[in-house]
Amino acid sequence: MNEPQKHVVILGGGFAGLNAARKLRAPNLRVTLVDRQNHHLFQPLLYQVATAGLAAPDIAQPLRHILARQRNVTTLMDEVQAIDLDKRQVTLGHGTLSYDYLIVALGARTGYFGRRDEWERYAPGLKTLDEATQLRRRMLHAFEQAETTRNTAEWSRLLSFVVIGGGPTGVETAGALVELARRVLTHDFRRIDPSKAHVHLVEAAPRLLLPFSPEQSEYTRRKLEAMGVKVHLGAPVTEVGPNHVQAGDLRIEASVILWAAGVEASPVTQTLAGVPLDRAGRVQVAPDLSLPEHPEVFAVGDLAAIVDTKNVRVPGVAPAAAQTGKHAAKQILAEIKGKARQPFTYLDKGSIATIGRSAAVAAVAKMRFNGWPAWAMWMSVHLFFLIGMRNRLIIFLHWAWAYLTWQRGARIITGINPSSDAPAPTPAASAAAASPPAPAPQKA
Amino acid sequence: MNEPQKHVVILGGGFAGLNAARKLRAPNLRVTLVDRQNHHLFQPLLYQVATAGLAAPDIAQPLRHILARQRNVTTLMDEVQAIDLDKRQVTLGHGTLSYDYLIVALGARTGYFGRRDEWERYAPGLKTLDEATQLRRRMLHAFEQAETTRNTAEWSRLLSFVVIGGGPTGVETAGALVELARRVLTHDFRRIDPSKAHVHLVEAAPRLLLPFSPEQSEYTRRKLEAMGVKVHLGAPVTEVGPNHVQAGDLRIEASVILWAAGVEASPVTQTLAGVPLDRAGRVQVAPDLSLPEHPEVFAVGDLAAIVDTKNVRVPGVAPAAAQTGKHAAKQILAEIKGKARQPFTYLDKGSIATIGRSAAVAAVAKMRFNGWPAWAMWMSVHLFFLIGMRNRLIIFLHWAWAYLTWQRGARIITGINPSSDAPAPTPAASAAAASPPAPAPQKA
Repeated sequence: MNEPQKHVVILGGGFAGLNAARKLRAPNLRVTLVDRQNHHLFQPLLYQVATAGLAAPDIAQPLRHILARQRNVTTLMDEVQAIDLDKRQVTLGHGTLSYDYLIVALGARTGYFGRRDEWERYAPGLKTLDEATQLRRRMLHAFEQAETTRNTAEWSRLLSFVVIGGGPTGVETAGALVELARRVLTHDFRRIDPSKAHVHLVEAAPRLLLPFSPEQSEYTRRKLEAMGVKVHLGAPVTEVGPNHVQAGDLRIEASVILWAAGVEASPVTQTLAGVPLDRAGRVQVAPDLSLPEHPEVFAVGDLAAIVDTKNVRVPGVAPAAAQTGKHAAKQILAEIKGKARQPFTYLDKGSIATIGRSAAVAAVAKMRFNGWPAWAMWMSVHLFFLIGMRNRLIIFLHWAWAYLTWQRGARIITGINPSSDAPAPTPAASAAAASPPAPAPQKA
Repeated sequence: MNEPQKHVVILGGGFAGLNAARKLRAPNLRVTLVDRQNHHLFQPLLYQVATAGLAAPDIAQPLRHILARQRNVTTLMDEVQAIDLDKRQVTLGHGTLSYDYLIVALGARTGYFGRRDEWERYAPGLKTLDEATQLRRRMLHAFEQAETTRNTAEWSRLLSFVVIGGGPTGVETAGALVELARRVLTHDFRRIDPSKAHVHLVEAAPRLLLPFSPEQSEYTRRKLEAMGVKVHLGAPVTEVGPNHVQAGDLRIEASVILWAAGVEASPVTQTLAGVPLDRAGRVQVAPDLSLPEHPEVFAVGDLAAIVDTKNVRVPGVAPAAAQTGKHAAKQILAEIKGKARQPFTYLDKGSIATIGRSAAVAAVAKMRFNGWPAWAMWMSVHLFFLIGMRNRLIIFLHWAWAYLTWQRGARIITGINPSSDAPAPTPAASAAAASPPAPAPQKA
């Protein structure tokens, strides 16, 4: 404690920010972690909350609890408004923070290719617990509405769901939705037949799951179709309305639309004066992940556009985010000890995506494998990387139960006035509609 | 199927309505169960959702799933608007239902002694999952706000919580709140000391837990005080404001106020033309639980004012509701077989309330016991009466984990814009009230 303490501010408590914080155990460092949520979210399982398999708390842990024993870290729940690189200051909702080092790890939000204002209200994304419980509410509520209505002409629209985007999130959600309708709900209704529900997966590219091999994309398509999903490839969405999606000539009427077709960096990056951003708003960083003109500032995780030492474009996945967060922390620790910084090298541990029961695709090193082995691996990997032994146990229990009984544990409709959010998607949006412009919050 | 089928409509899927539906297995009966929620809620554990111990789905089951195998029951999620006794018709949000028999089991809502319009917004009750997650959000958010604010004069108000009403719900919630602050959160903050939080329990009567003996009330008061709750007896609340409660001379500033001081029958009872209601809006029923002028209509559960054959006033507790629901169903089954109706006799299985870790009070037959034995009994009884083996397992796991680690599994803040609902209680209310400045996030 003889040298002056350096203050490291970390913005964002996702995989990148949290891993940075955990790495920064050093007596001469004071760390402040800021997130707009009070929890770290295990995003890879978010689609299971949205499709009624898990409860929201099962995949979230309070950030301050994860960091409770690391006494040099202070956690603040607050919104990041702006970053002043020259003054080395961050403006929050409740005050400002000065830093010696800054790690910006605010992540990505759903991207709408410039059509956010028109489309987001009808086709929300899947990035937060609130979005997941909203999707669950709207989807379960559509079945309830169909059972209640006397107007059977409404059934087809009410029981149609569209997932836009054939990446891992889209594939996983479409698979889980169709299993819900065709297997989980089958015996529970009297007037409607839930297995007549339609789940559409709409993708602009000619194949699903671009990070995987064409054979695996084809396996995924066949598997989804066998499960009952209508897969539309080469169908870029041209219009989204309250109850329909248009993709060229294809028009689909639906009660619930999910947008899983793209991400863009947190809008806070736009407050970084003089820092070049790519088309998705991501920060272009130096090889050590710092800003070229500001070596005391690092951009990590989904918010950064990173090309590593081996010229690999680092993908926007959880393990990559964790690695970049740790790397930034290590550079700070090294510098304080007077050592040189190192460029970032991405260690690709492989990709894995689940399609449905006993069906998944995996690509590890040069190996490609599908089906039950990939599915078992997917579950093990996710249980392993979850934070907290209790959550692991509870999720394992939910999964085992679901496997044995075909049932799901979170089929409840909660939230404000479900009947009112059928056309206008969010309670928030309907409040916004009533009032002038809504300040879009940042994803801290 | 030779005789014409009779149609039984059950309004409400709580303990009374659900037990009635389950009893009505008969080939010549068609049953329609209506509830505004899609789930049966295990209300006795609602306070554990509110105090971050359990996730909402852990204590709820979809009604239509519980009744899936009982093919003569149709479940509808809809709101009951009115009951027309003469036409034998129920008006719902989406149509009408005609009945041969009607079982009204709509339960109770929080009662404010005529001050609902003024007080509910500042001191919401604890009757639904949304109210529970809202209380959780506001309470956890108060700690977050205290940690964030530079204005340390705010701390005392932010970290003060008031529970109004010293019945089982009030006692259980106050106990769980103080344990949360003093034990669960202790190591997680850096600027504030959560154990300095104040939990006040305000009761109009001279003792807590009126259904129990004075000795047990005294045990409860001493126990709560030892845990850190400030118990105010003989303090009828005279005013509730956005951030304070006034009870005679006593004024408490607080950030979160819970109303657990009374219930009144569902307002639908007011549409029952010519039916006498008591002061709390409850329906006065004949000995067989039917309406004196309408033997085809039964009122059961918390919505009915029932005095049984032994002149016992039936209390508003879950086991009593279940018994009344079953009784009404049995009268219908008997009548269809040409048998006479029977008056209702309440079987009092005892009362039990928990105070905190290893502390509870129980009154079974003539026995009274407190402490660990009562607490173990409380847990066993609640696990036993929960619906669904998976929920039992998961709750058992949560409880065992909490017992061993002092941690709680649902410390997450979810819901629309937590910062906006500090003064105005419900997101719905704040959306309504705050139309102009609504800080509505596109949380989607």
